[in-house]
Amino acid sequence: MIEIERKFLVKSSDFKEQAFAQNQIAQGYLSSLPERTVRVRIKGKKGFLTIKGIVHHGGMSRFEWENEIPLDEAQELLKLCEKGKIEKTRFEIKAGKHVFEVDEFYGENEGLIMAEIELESETESFEKPDWLGEEVTNDERYYNAYLSKKPFKTWEK
Amino acid sequence: MIEIERKFLVKSSDFKEQAFAQNQIAQGYLSSLPERTVRVRIKGKKGFLTIKGIVHHGGMSRFEWENEIPLDEAQELLKLCEKGKIEKTRFEIKAGKHVFEVDEFYGENEGLIMAEIELESETESFEKPDWLGEEVTNDERYYNAYLSKKPFKTWEK
Repeated sequence: MIEIERKFLVKSSDFKEQAFAQNQIAQGYLSSLPERTVRVRIKGKKGFLTIKGIVHHGGMSRFEWENEIPLDEAQELLKLCEKGKIEKTRFEIKAGKHVFEVDEFYGENEGLIMAEIELESETESFEKPDWLGEEVTNDERYYNAYLSKKPFKTWEK
Repeated sequence: MIEIERKFLVKSSDFKEQAFAQNQIAQGYLSSLPERTVRVRIKGKKGFLTIKGIVHHGGMSRFEWENEIPLDEAQELLKLCEKGKIEKTRFEIKAGKHVFEVDEFYGENEGLIMAEIELESETESFEKPDWLGEEVTNDERYYNAYLSKKPFKTWEK
């Protein structure tokens, strides 16, 4: 399928009290190239293998394939991954008919909080909560695969 | 799981009349690094996603994870792969309690025929058919991921 998503920074921690779900995520990359990203993720007690292709149309659309896999297999595959695991808490927040996924990062990416929304089309409108900040959809530094190599704490600010 | 396999060249085409199964294989790599190979394969009408880790113990043992995936998804994922698809016919041949998989390559790897046997342990003995040639288990040039980048026809002989 083709995934259309927009990414934003987050201005305040007000999103936390609006969350209907909260999960720990640990993820790594078998390939972190933007042309063919292969990601291993553990979210709560579930494992996932996700493959993403190159980004089209100004950064919003991307081929995405995902399969749930057993937790123990995800743990084994995570050991094979490139250096630079990503650890974060994901909060899910309803906004109108959409859901924002807000990721609070730890470790080498501590200080970064990022919100994502998945859309049906690139022109679809959506509700913007008060805590939503600057859009960073087209900024490749905010790709998780990039963050695994160049973590937020190492950025020049 | 850990996969233990040995690879051999093939001296004659006698294996063909002994085969109990024959399938076309097309495969590509989302990552062809030996440390974390991610392979997309179409075998007959089935799709597979396979992840292999680094090789241990002199080239015989390797971590391997494989899942069958729908054919149409395998076709989509094959489009994302690195350049250098591998095409071959796989013949399966019984030899005592083991099965040899013999791959006859096409395209840029035409001329190469290679047999593999999967073993329970690195010291397990097995029947050697008359057509079985030189062992190449420890020669990295014969990895399919390597062949996808440096095909057989380009080798200096």
